[in-house]
Amino acid sequence: MKKILIQLDSDKFASVFDTITAYDAGVDRVLQYGGVTTEEVRNLVYGAMFTRAGDALQNSSVFVGGSDVSYGEEIMKAVVESFFGPVRVSVMIDTNGCNTTAVAAVRKIVSVGGIKGQKAVVMGGTGPVGMRAAALMAGEGAEVLLTSRSQQRSEKVCASIKERFGVEVSPAEVQSFEDIKGILDGAYTVLCSGAAGITLLPESVWVEHPTLRVLADVNAVPPLGIEKIKPHWDWKEKGRKIIFGALGIGGLKMKIHRSCLSRLFKQNDLVLDAEEIYKIAKTMHNK
Amino acid sequence: MKKILIQLDSDKFASVFDTITAYDAGVDRVLQYGGVTTEEVRNLVYGAMFTRAGDALQNSSVFVGGSDVSYGEEIMKAVVESFFGPVRVSVMIDTNGCNTTAVAAVRKIVSVGGIKGQKAVVMGGTGPVGMRAAALMAGEGAEVLLTSRSQQRSEKVCASIKERFGVEVSPAEVQSFEDIKGILDGAYTVLCSGAAGITLLPESVWVEHPTLRVLADVNAVPPLGIEKIKPHWDWKEKGRKIIFGALGIGGLKMKIHRSCLSRLFKQNDLVLDAEEIYKIAKTMHNK
Amino acid sequence: MKKILIQLDSDKFASVFDTITAYDAGVDRVLQYGGVTTEEVRNLVYGAMFTRAGDALQNSSVFVGGSDVSYGEEIMKAVVESFFGPVRVSVMIDTNGCNTTAVAAVRKIVSVGGIKGQKAVVMGGTGPVGMRAAALMAGEGAEVLLTSRSQQRSEKVCASIKERFGVEVSPAEVQSFEDIKGILDGAYTVLCSGAAGITLLPESVWVEHPTLRVLADVNAVPPLGIEKIKPHWDWKEKGRKIIFGALGIGGLKMKIHRSCLSRLFKQNDLVLDAEEIYKIAKTMHNK
Repeated sequence: MKKILIQLDSDKFASVFDTITAYDAGVDRVLQYGGVTTEEVRNLVYGAMFTRAGDALQNSSVFVGGSDVSYGEEIMKAVVESFFGPVRVSVMIDTNGCNTTAVAAVRKIVSVGGIKGQKAVVMGGTGPVGMRAAALMAGEGAEVLLTSRSQQRSEKVCASIKERFGVEVSPAEVQSFEDIKGILDGAYTVLCSGAAGITLLPESVWVEHPTLRVLADVNAVPPLGIEKIKPHWDWKEKGRKIIFGALGIGGLKMKIHRSCLSRLFKQNDLVLDAEEIYKIAKTMHNK
Repeated sequence: MKKILIQLDSDKFASVFDTITAYDAGVDRVLQYGGVTTEEVRNLVYGAMFTRAGDALQNSSVFVGGSDVSYGEEIMKAVVESFFGPVRVSVMIDTNGCNTTAVAAVRKIVSVGGIKGQKAVVMGGTGPVGMRAAALMAGEGAEVLLTSRSQQRSEKVCASIKERFGVEVSPAEVQSFEDIKGILDGAYTVLCSGAAGITLLPESVWVEHPTLRVLADVNAVPPLGIEKIKPHWDWKEKGRKIIFGALGIGGLKMKIHRSCLSRLFKQNDLVLDAEEIYKIAKTMHNK
Repeated sequence: MKKILIQLDSDKFASVFDTITAYDAGVDRVLQYGGVTTEEVRNLVYGAMFTRAGDALQNSSVFVGGSDVSYGEEIMKAVVESFFGPVRVSVMIDTNGCNTTAVAAVRKIVSVGGIKGQKAVVMGGTGPVGMRAAALMAGEGAEVLLTSRSQQRSEKVCASIKERFGVEVSPAEVQSFEDIKGILDGAYTVLCSGAAGITLLPESVWVEHPTLRVLADVNAVPPLGIEKIKPHWDWKEKGRKIIFGALGIGGLKMKIHRSCLSRLFKQNDLVLDAEEIYKIAKTMHNK
């Protein structure tokens, strides 16, 4: 029986990236649905729930993608609400790649050594990746600071993290060079997850920083988030520091994405969002 | 050479259910087309007709689905009109599953014993399933009564049946409990094919009915069409009666659907609508 | 690793013809995208560029189809502009089948014997097929005349050919029977590539023509472009003349189409437009 993935995407076209990745993960057939609205989810999911029965149900799964992360979450909610009792299929959400990217970045950082009790800073952390990475590091016992150019925005995101993940992350505002230095004071690790093509961390700040030990950047578009690093760096040692660039993290991200997709088809009741994806990643090598 | 099914669906999205079923029937590739209008059919069908040649043509087929049954019939007409001479591909129509559901229900009823010359009642019979089931039972020689809450609607549907299938079905109106008892007087079998979640046949009427021998219900959403039965009943004996619930019928429906799809690819000139699907079902086991 | 073709089509629905042909060429999975605009190309192509890496990139390719040839060329341009450096995928354009049809027609004509230095006439040559066939024959060293009912249109197309292909083709106007005779004076070969169902070359002109040796017609819809020939003729000898009808050419066209598609997946940097497709066809048998 063929493993069939129903790809739900709120963009006009279902993502080429997600479909190819699904095939590379061993899925037999991907049904691509673009322009999906929450109202249309139930009927599509019913088509997966009521075609195969019993153990065969695990051969049908749902993937929620698309570039709009918050709308994707509504679609995910509609998927799960379509199930009743044991009549359900496995589902994974990775809108805009934010779950697998955040998980891969945190796994890279954690691989250097425990971050428990350490100070971790997520710069430009109000986007989907930063928010998830902050939550996951807090879950690992780090004291996490999430920065934004606006105090109000970082506070709002920290509140969302508290509500969604049940962990504490502290908000911070970065307006100046002096702010950055203050925020990084005593920090063990920093993750840059701001907009593509914007430098958040100048070389002069990080290169001689006395406590910073692990640096990570998910921005692959020059100029990078961390000045003077390379995107392909993957556990690059510079002095006492270990650095991960976007492509170094990206390789692990792809592996995590594929591994999660392949697990969808081993049971019919998986719900893979950030936390569950992180748990799966923990069972994998970090390379 | 890969077996390719061109799925034409008038709904915005091509049905997940129909696509998965096609893969389970052994189709190699399904090309899903949603939002298809009759004007667009010819060009899509030409793409199937003119790509492969000779014997290879039987590896391309067309499936007409969608929830709008009457529009699906117009699409089916446009498909068949696109053919010329031997340059054609096989095609099956099962909009909203109505053909395979009606065929499965009638096959279940007939499996108990001949209905020839017997009185058969189709309650809530003005929908696509009821209309087809009534026609098929009339074709088996039953004296069929088709009921509706409105005499006018049941008369209209009986006239459509006469025109489309060339068989006689008698219209009847059901407004009250007394009407039901009268209509079922002397009946051998009853099929409930009304709207989901509406009870048409009270337990007090059927449970001690002196002549009713076979009961079937295609409604799986509680409350069921026949009061106090279970959807999974499949040749359930209650006293002298044999009862088929929606899921009992549904299992056979799926098998018929898959079997028809698989036959599409054995020749290039099949046209599978209700009658032809019924003929194919007759060659199959009824379980 | 599965060979995946991303099919970009500016028509509402991605062409059934192109998809089936891709599967017959050995492509494993076709991702069909219909209603594609130039603005949306980059994101779709990025999905192919950034999913697989290194040698694996050659397993993802792009096909540009659709019935609108000039818009397809803009899409093709947008595809190529999405690449940077070695991060790219192979791509083929065959909007409305015009490249493979023109190439097949010219290969058939050339297969009879060299056309170098000979006079070649493309009648009704202002469409996509005629324009490409004229350019390819000029590239083979023929003296090509391209006719239209309007001198202005044929001049415009010859200028486009000069700009796009860097070869000289002479424009000509055909308004009357006498015009045709004059234009064909001394010609060695004639290709009819006008609109479907319109006769361009009367039997009385060609049947006893003293110099015409090879005739070809890509119109399969009666009345044909060349009067009194048959579409299935493939190297049909009539007196001293060799004649190719639309279906005779069509068989080779399909082979060329499939062969090009299969080559896309052998490297990640092919760009297949008319000239490159012609070069590939030269390495193939002409039957």
